[in-house]
Amino acid sequence: MAAETDPGVDEFETIARLLRPLAGAPEALGLMDDAAAIPSRPGFDLVVSKDAMVAGVHFLEADPPELVARKLLRTNLSDLAAKAAEPYGYFLAVAWPRGSGWAERERFAAGLREDQDQFGVTLLGGDTVSTPGPLTLSLTILGWTPSGAMVRRSGARPGEKVLVSGTIGDGWLGLKAARGELEGVPPEAAEWLAGRYRVPEPRLELRDVLRARAGGAADVSDGLIADAGHIAEASSVQLRLQLDRLPVSEPASTWLQRQPDRAAALAALATGGDDYEIVLTAAPGQAPALIAEAEAAGVALTEIGDVVDGEGVSATFEGREIDIRRTGWRHG
Amino acid sequence: MAAETDPGVDEFETIARLLRPLAGAPEALGLMDDAAAIPSRPGFDLVVSKDAMVAGVHFLEADPPELVARKLLRTNLSDLAAKAAEPYGYFLAVAWPRGSGWAERERFAAGLREDQDQFGVTLLGGDTVSTPGPLTLSLTILGWTPSGAMVRRSGARPGEKVLVSGTIGDGWLGLKAARGELEGVPPEAAEWLAGRYRVPEPRLELRDVLRARAGGAADVSDGLIADAGHIAEASSVQLRLQLDRLPVSEPASTWLQRQPDRAAALAALATGGDDYEIVLTAAPGQAPALIAEAEAAGVALTEIGDVVDGEGVSATFEGREIDIRRTGWRHG
Repeated sequence: MAAETDPGVDEFETIARLLRPLAGAPEALGLMDDAAAIPSRPGFDLVVSKDAMVAGVHFLEADPPELVARKLLRTNLSDLAAKAAEPYGYFLAVAWPRGSGWAERERFAAGLREDQDQFGVTLLGGDTVSTPGPLTLSLTILGWTPSGAMVRRSGARPGEKVLVSGTIGDGWLGLKAARGELEGVPPEAAEWLAGRYRVPEPRLELRDVLRARAGGAADVSDGLIADAGHIAEASSVQLRLQLDRLPVSEPASTWLQRQPDRAAALAALATGGDDYEIVLTAAPGQAPALIAEAEAAGVALTEIGDVVDGEGVSATFEGREIDIRRTGWRHG
Repeated sequence: MAAETDPGVDEFETIARLLRPLAGAPEALGLMDDAAAIPSRPGFDLVVSKDAMVAGVHFLEADPPELVARKLLRTNLSDLAAKAAEPYGYFLAVAWPRGSGWAERERFAAGLREDQDQFGVTLLGGDTVSTPGPLTLSLTILGWTPSGAMVRRSGARPGEKVLVSGTIGDGWLGLKAARGELEGVPPEAAEWLAGRYRVPEPRLELRDVLRARAGGAADVSDGLIADAGHIAEASSVQLRLQLDRLPVSEPASTWLQRQPDRAAALAALATGGDDYEIVLTAAPGQAPALIAEAEAAGVALTEIGDVVDGEGVSATFEGREIDIRRTGWRHG
């Protein structure tokens, strides 16, 4: 593990006192080496993903540090969940804003500890530096799948059904709620939505189900429509979504009922990001078992569309075509 | 690979046009998936290291983007070199400052391309985001060693010799030169030193030699004394350095001759960072063969001290003890 010294807090002390206790696996070498050495696991592939988060862009500057840490870990775990991979460990790079104190680092480490224990991952190495800019985080997550068994974005085939886990749009509404900009929902609903934005739920319980029965899959980070688009692009197919079948939470439903144009509102929920659900495709014959087995694992799956010949994503509401590009294909 | 859209340049376009061409290995899945799937290599360990770099902290804001990219890759390759690992691939996270244009991204990608080809590594995945702060980079590098053969910081034993590759202090003088703050050296010497700072040389040629003959090793990123200290700490020994034996380049020697206190000046060279040489230990019987084999591989190794019982790093100059803590153990 590398580090450097800030005029304020010592990065070496950050590693020794806060991060080393998170790095119990022998291959992390107590964070005392330049690198970790990870033994090969014959018969398995190492699934690796890397995400970055910037304060003020991917989380709010005022968000509690322990929740920022948990979001960072969970958004990466969500990538593993979508690939049907078993979480193993992670490398962390933190650029601390100059003048950031010890207390917030302790809270950040406490957040990592909490979710490490919950999800069975361990810190393997990384880097801590200082920055004149905002808190900037990068996490590289590692997981295992049996050789060749990673569920890919490219696995969708025409004729398959499109399904999605949990509920869609909570992340986007939750961001508004966290900013105090969500109108027309009761305070407890707003708080629940903000929690969905701040601490997403990686759908790791779906691992066996996805591996056995899914065609293609991706996690919903950029927004359902964008991530369905990623599957469409990688698989050279079109994903055709029925917006009226979109699963929405009770709090999102409260918001939805107050919107003048239900189709546009649903399209907005499907365009907003940060849901960290899983969108997947499966052969029609697999869908009922998929839904039943996911339910047994504690995760609701909802059928929301079909895979057809073509490209990109199309959407309908009560049978009529919706121009989803008008609602903003990609979020800023 | 993940991305998001900036009001200026499209991160998806950055991936498609600039990064995808760098990701030719099948396991990168054309950067079109949430993750890469890396097959296990029985009999080998995967050596993984992750470093972060921030504009204005680890490189100059005005440094050419292609050189920044090459430094990022090379500093990580240097970690692999010190571990005697064979470079394999990397994951990249870039937080682009808002308003950064297409031209600098093209130059950044061109720098990656140049060094990828030179060092035989491939882009495997990552993330590109935007930031209100400075350009912030994180790279996770992957390499291979035969199982259990990674050279560790913890491998030093009392009685061994301490050796270092190349020349020490060029990185620190080079930073001064790049800032236009280096006095007393001719312009061409200053330019050479700035080049050493901007484009370090990972000592990958030492792989076989290190694996066969080294005790402990680390790369010199924080400064020779700090990195020797990392070996001392991980190995529970003391590294005793003779500053008068420090290998210095011709340009550094020019600077050195003008310093009033040679011992203090040598201590400063040994304290400054960014050399990306390798400091290692080896049994006395191994040292001559080590030096000869390294020379045959094109890298000079110099014996600069001994491993003794104790802790930390001590230094002498012409036989007398130097208080290296006075010169600043760690750099900011």
